[in-house]
Amino acid sequence: MAATGKEQDVAACVRLPRLRADLERLFELGKEDGRAGAWRLAFSPADVRGRSFVLELMRDAGLAPRVDAAGNLIGAHRGRRPELPSLTIGSHIDTVPGGGMFDGALGVLGGIETLRAMRGAGYEPLHTVEVIAFSNEEKARFAGPGGSRAMVSGIGPGDLEGVRDAAGVLLTEAMSGAGLDPSEVAGARRPAGFCGGYLELHVEQGGRMDRDGIQIGAVTAIVAITRARVVFLGKANHAGTTVMTDRRDALWAAADLVGDVREAALAEKGELVGTVGVLEVSPGAANVIPGRAELSIELRSADEERIRRVLDGLLARARELATVYGLKVEAKAGAVGRSVPMDATVVAEVQAAAAGLGLRCEKLPSWAGHDASQFAPVAPAGMIFVPSIGGVSHAPGEKTSWEDAASGVKVLAVTLCRLDRLWAPADGG
Amino acid sequence: MAATGKEQDVAACVRLPRLRADLERLFELGKEDGRAGAWRLAFSPADVRGRSFVLELMRDAGLAPRVDAAGNLIGAHRGRRPELPSLTIGSHIDTVPGGGMFDGALGVLGGIETLRAMRGAGYEPLHTVEVIAFSNEEKARFAGPGGSRAMVSGIGPGDLEGVRDAAGVLLTEAMSGAGLDPSEVAGARRPAGFCGGYLELHVEQGGRMDRDGIQIGAVTAIVAITRARVVFLGKANHAGTTVMTDRRDALWAAADLVGDVREAALAEKGELVGTVGVLEVSPGAANVIPGRAELSIELRSADEERIRRVLDGLLARARELATVYGLKVEAKAGAVGRSVPMDATVVAEVQAAAAGLGLRCEKLPSWAGHDASQFAPVAPAGMIFVPSIGGVSHAPGEKTSWEDAASGVKVLAVTLCRLDRLWAPADGG
Repeated sequence: MAATGKEQDVAACVRLPRLRADLERLFELGKEDGRAGAWRLAFSPADVRGRSFVLELMRDAGLAPRVDAAGNLIGAHRGRRPELPSLTIGSHIDTVPGGGMFDGALGVLGGIETLRAMRGAGYEPLHTVEVIAFSNEEKARFAGPGGSRAMVSGIGPGDLEGVRDAAGVLLTEAMSGAGLDPSEVAGARRPAGFCGGYLELHVEQGGRMDRDGIQIGAVTAIVAITRARVVFLGKANHAGTTVMTDRRDALWAAADLVGDVREAALAEKGELVGTVGVLEVSPGAANVIPGRAELSIELRSADEERIRRVLDGLLARARELATVYGLKVEAKAGAVGRSVPMDATVVAEVQAAAAGLGLRCEKLPSWAGHDASQFAPVAPAGMIFVPSIGGVSHAPGEKTSWEDAASGVKVLAVTLCRLDRLWAPADGG
Repeated sequence: MAATGKEQDVAACVRLPRLRADLERLFELGKEDGRAGAWRLAFSPADVRGRSFVLELMRDAGLAPRVDAAGNLIGAHRGRRPELPSLTIGSHIDTVPGGGMFDGALGVLGGIETLRAMRGAGYEPLHTVEVIAFSNEEKARFAGPGGSRAMVSGIGPGDLEGVRDAAGVLLTEAMSGAGLDPSEVAGARRPAGFCGGYLELHVEQGGRMDRDGIQIGAVTAIVAITRARVVFLGKANHAGTTVMTDRRDALWAAADLVGDVREAALAEKGELVGTVGVLEVSPGAANVIPGRAELSIELRSADEERIRRVLDGLLARARELATVYGLKVEAKAGAVGRSVPMDATVVAEVQAAAAGLGLRCEKLPSWAGHDASQFAPVAPAGMIFVPSIGGVSHAPGEKTSWEDAASGVKVLAVTLCRLDRLWAPADGG
């Protein structure tokens, strides 16, 4: 299917100044106490201000927005054939503490801009198109569950029970404070088949595209994530009187394993990342040999088999190190996570849309989790990435060039139009 | 100077059953809530019970005990020439949480037994002999200052101010609770020249003597201790989206340095020990690359030059690792501590006493700190070690064979008699 003039008209109606003003205003509303970055932690005052702003934009765009019981903001553009399942443009506006201007917000505000551009170009979609801001995506304040899960798989009030932020505030209290009724959260679940396709525009968060001059990423999969905990047990002892050759120092093995995780990941040449983010030593005094050391291992790859092989190797290495240093070792490895492939048709259409717009596009995996993972099991889903300058993410200095941001919205708009036509069954009309 | 019959009589009057009963009783009084080991943390209820018991033993031995304002327990056996400075037999009875039966207690109760044996043998010392149980030696509950420092160097109430245990109890409150008046602590300082010589019997706490079949250790020096803190600063970042080759992971350098400390210490072949007892990573989440890692390095050796060389090498290595991994590094190294040599005459007399008793004696350094360090600058000081079975220390399972314990007390008694005569100036009498 070739690009048509109509799609190019929609792309031409994407207005960068309008998009930019929206993103900057949302960022401004996210400030707290003069601290850098956006502080739209889920259901916080700044998030509530941002949510009101997004609802206002949806209303202005004629999208008749509503808020579901999980706090998802849903704006709909009715299609010419409303009996078809809707197409969803989703992302989130909640942030980590001191987050950037684009993470999540670009997908939501770019989605609204897409619908404004469709209207501007006089493009009437066959499918109803919904733009959705999912609640609590970052899990930075509350561990979960998030709004996209509530919508796709359903959650009950019991899933919210006892979930607190670091200050002890209950998720249910925060939701009530944002005008929601958490006892009704099960009602956020949509009926099976509600979604005919899912598209999410997001910043890459890593530095690959920026480094390689890629303007558009056609996301092939959301990588699998697997975590393990390894505990080495030795013998806490006097740091003076215990000769070096008699020590059973748990940290010796843990420290060696940190290096092994790094080397194992490097050996996979970009196809896997490995991180030790937690390393705890006890008793933790300068004059006591560590009797216990616990570390986390996190592996991510689009290739589950690769994760399995690397993890097996590292756990075998942990046992070997325990033997070398006279320790016991306990390893608790979670099951190897599933990578979530994006729909091949959507990937191809993103590539085609980018090509039609003269943009340099590459297929690549997403190394972070996204709401798209919730939709992929129930509908053809895909993601469009734009570059993060220097790969900075989850920090006030996160940035995407305005040109790249606008390109991302154009690709979103064109892909949506193409899928709208591609997926509409002939109605004989 | 050859051993005389009189000294051997004193040694023969050391009564193991009596010593053993005292040690077992003190250990029993140190129990709390059915937990294993002794819980005589400084000025705790168990410590107060133990202190009362020691004062009772001193009274029964005719030593007219007194308690100074720092809480040191002092029992004196008046010499025939009371104008001479006194000889001090010192150690402590406070313990770490769940400490063993012998650490500290053997030196105090063995000191009392020594004076009982002298009396039993009819040995009348020329010097007044004081047996002292110093307060707060372990620094396990309160960071300090300890009673031996108060006695030798003097401390003021300001030195006690604000010192709290983990539960928030002030050292001054705990001292008051033990019947002391902390505002008078400066009065614990003794006049210059009060001590003519210092002897301390203690368990080795390490496993060298036990392994090599050494019955008596003639301590040559208390090793120098030097600590450094090294902080690596990288960039906390997303553990998924940040490619391996772009990471600035502070833990990579810290972990490598742990191995370097081990290897550097092993290369000194028993003349130095090196420990990383603290390693803290932040932000400390499984899905975030560590932006900061801080570790402690502790080096101990009787040879300060060796410490300096190894420390310099490790700090240079830390800078090198920072360069390799793209990090900043900050190192705060304390001044290289001083090793405290024991008096050569005392060492020789300990060896002679052991030889006279047919015991296998070796010269060796003490790898742990002791009250003897306070006395060495002001008086000829020495220490006698007996083996710790399996090197276990600061744990309920700490043990010394009764035979070795009795041998230690005999060597203490004989050495004291020898020094008493050696150091008494001719009075023409």
